[in-house]
Amino acid sequence: MQLVETGTVTSPQGFKAAGVAAGIKPRGRPDLAIILSDAPAVFAGAFTDHALPAAAVRYDRELFGRAETVRAIVVNSGNANSCTGAQGMTDTLEMAAHTAEQTGIASDAVIVSSTGVIGVPLPMDRIRGGITAAAAALAADGGSDAAVAIMTTDTVPKSLAATVDIDGVPVTIGGIAKGAGMIAPKLIGPMRHATMLAYMTTDAAIAADLLQSTLEASLDESFNRITVDGDRSTNDTFIALANGMAANQPIQAGSAAASAFQHAFNAVAAELARMIVRDGEGATRFVQVRVAGAASRGEAKRGAHAIANSMLCKTAWFGGDPNWGRILDTVGYAGIAVDPDGIDMDFDDVAVVRGGVAAGTPQGVLDTAVSAAEFRIDIDLGVGRGAYTVWTCDLSCDYVNINAEHHT
Amino acid sequence: MQLVETGTVTSPQGFKAAGVAAGIKPRGRPDLAIILSDAPAVFAGAFTDHALPAAAVRYDRELFGRAETVRAIVVNSGNANSCTGAQGMTDTLEMAAHTAEQTGIASDAVIVSSTGVIGVPLPMDRIRGGITAAAAALAADGGSDAAVAIMTTDTVPKSLAATVDIDGVPVTIGGIAKGAGMIAPKLIGPMRHATMLAYMTTDAAIAADLLQSTLEASLDESFNRITVDGDRSTNDTFIALANGMAANQPIQAGSAAASAFQHAFNAVAAELARMIVRDGEGATRFVQVRVAGAASRGEAKRGAHAIANSMLCKTAWFGGDPNWGRILDTVGYAGIAVDPDGIDMDFDDVAVVRGGVAAGTPQGVLDTAVSAAEFRIDIDLGVGRGAYTVWTCDLSCDYVNINAEHHT
Repeated sequence: MQLVETGTVTSPQGFKAAGVAAGIKPRGRPDLAIILSDAPAVFAGAFTDHALPAAAVRYDRELFGRAETVRAIVVNSGNANSCTGAQGMTDTLEMAAHTAEQTGIASDAVIVSSTGVIGVPLPMDRIRGGITAAAAALAADGGSDAAVAIMTTDTVPKSLAATVDIDGVPVTIGGIAKGAGMIAPKLIGPMRHATMLAYMTTDAAIAADLLQSTLEASLDESFNRITVDGDRSTNDTFIALANGMAANQPIQAGSAAASAFQHAFNAVAAELARMIVRDGEGATRFVQVRVAGAASRGEAKRGAHAIANSMLCKTAWFGGDPNWGRILDTVGYAGIAVDPDGIDMDFDDVAVVRGGVAAGTPQGVLDTAVSAAEFRIDIDLGVGRGAYTVWTCDLSCDYVNINAEHHT
Repeated sequence: MQLVETGTVTSPQGFKAAGVAAGIKPRGRPDLAIILSDAPAVFAGAFTDHALPAAAVRYDRELFGRAETVRAIVVNSGNANSCTGAQGMTDTLEMAAHTAEQTGIASDAVIVSSTGVIGVPLPMDRIRGGITAAAAALAADGGSDAAVAIMTTDTVPKSLAATVDIDGVPVTIGGIAKGAGMIAPKLIGPMRHATMLAYMTTDAAIAADLLQSTLEASLDESFNRITVDGDRSTNDTFIALANGMAANQPIQAGSAAASAFQHAFNAVAAELARMIVRDGEGATRFVQVRVAGAASRGEAKRGAHAIANSMLCKTAWFGGDPNWGRILDTVGYAGIAVDPDGIDMDFDDVAVVRGGVAAGTPQGVLDTAVSAAEFRIDIDLGVGRGAYTVWTCDLSCDYVNINAEHHT
């Protein structure tokens, strides 16, 4: 398996993409993307368990129940088409139909996504114009343009690919993602509902159900372990397409090939997830929080997410303050089992807490550890063997300003 | 029942108090308080369900199991004496013993509280000196000094009293509280564990168990419905003392007198709770969030707390942005039942959402509603009859700066 940093969704064979400015976002920024597979592609996905899913999410879930393959994904940024009532669904259907018409495919072969402000109807004239322009601009090297067009408050596009040998045949997996705020995905599998957007493409030959189980197995290693602000979105969506154009022997569940494919798939998904956190709104530090020694993996996950979402922990990290008391405070109210006299904590390789009290490491050493742009916090609760890792960022004044000043 | 805005814990008969500077906090700010009852007082309390309670909280819980009356409360600010191991409990016992010695009472008649930084041993020389000085300064008008001495990042002291007629006898209830950050108390009754601190005193004659049930009944009307940042503390404590010196007929459970006492008790507790939110770290707006039409009161409470703690909602309020989409987003991921087409929302008396979509109120009217220093958000989920109200504040750059710059 080899990561290709310059790779994207058009790195696998048989995929084209485009990103154009439809005029949904101000100042002519790109805001409409299409990804097209030359051949019918099996697809897999996960959505959040949000009770008010956006129209596109509801449409996609329904598509999962009736379509066996798809050809295209159309995405607009700048408007989430969420909490827009019956008009919202009419507009999503129109996005699918117009994309199908402009690309010469069936309308039930189109997956739709939207991201942006909630509660405002889509400007359909501009959306239609954007789809027409994007369809005309589809190109085998268009993945990077698509990655730019799906951005909202992101400051950098996020894309990546990996190549992996499957039974002697090189297979490529590409991906793009967006998201900077309202990031705390809880993706729980198909037919459920998950504004993080992530799209992965592959030219592997793989059955839809194995692609789906591969995608679901990747969640806890990637998008479900990230949080910027603890706010889940009405639109969170993660889709994978596989068009089989690498012409490998179809991957069989349980095989060495499936394992290699899973490994590469996880690597791309995890790096896309880390890219989102590094570009978190206002973020100045990337923090890996690992909770171990918990009663169960579930309790470790709960504790790690509590720390990663604590305003007091996140502001301390912004300030470069090795305030381990706030971290222990958070672990203590997370509703999980802890051994008060058995807790250990480290910042990178620096001992911070031993047996529930200060380890005695000099203040200057602690200060240095948390002044890095990226650092790890490892906590052992002293109870059991459950462990989980979450990736998060600090909470800065820029986060406040971005979200106080912009109606996003 | 009459509220006395200038009232405090020394407003009821037979209570003295003092607040002095022991040198725990920098720059000579007051940081040690004693409240003393002239007569033995029955007591009630609630603590959070934190898994790592501070030494003082563990000590107080134990005291609840063996003492029938107490005489004094001693509180230090500037240091939470939390995550301080065995030394922490030794120091709490010494605080109780030295307070008892200096005030001439039994050491098991002293309730102890600490608030401030976590993980640092108490400076016991200064604590002892402060207790000696506070005991010498105890005065019948010392409640205001005590309210100042328990402050941490608070910008104003918080105190209040109420008088209520009990069977023809005037009874007074006084209270002080502190708290500005790490505020999201979850107080669940005695023998559990609750850095919000609140102390109420009354000269009413009332049995300990009725005082306890009165206090517990007040929680969901007061301290359990406030949040600043969603971070619970290792030290949250709410204590009430009743010394009987008003010489009323002892209040009987279920009587009109009990009802009048509960009403006055709730009024003082609720106003102290609102004072904490108005003085929330960096807060510029006070927001009342009421969720109604929920499947149950518990679901309404969960939804209201989710909105009140959402970083995206709180930053929008800071920016004066009537971003109702973020509010609906939060309701949708709170894990409660909602009717997507049945949701209504109002800001004060302005219609914002009707039937799950924008009500069509002009933007300028919405802008004006959320630009007030205090406003209400009322949401009806369209599902059932459960309702709950939470008081919260916005999230500003000042919150970030306070917690990034100060090791609190």
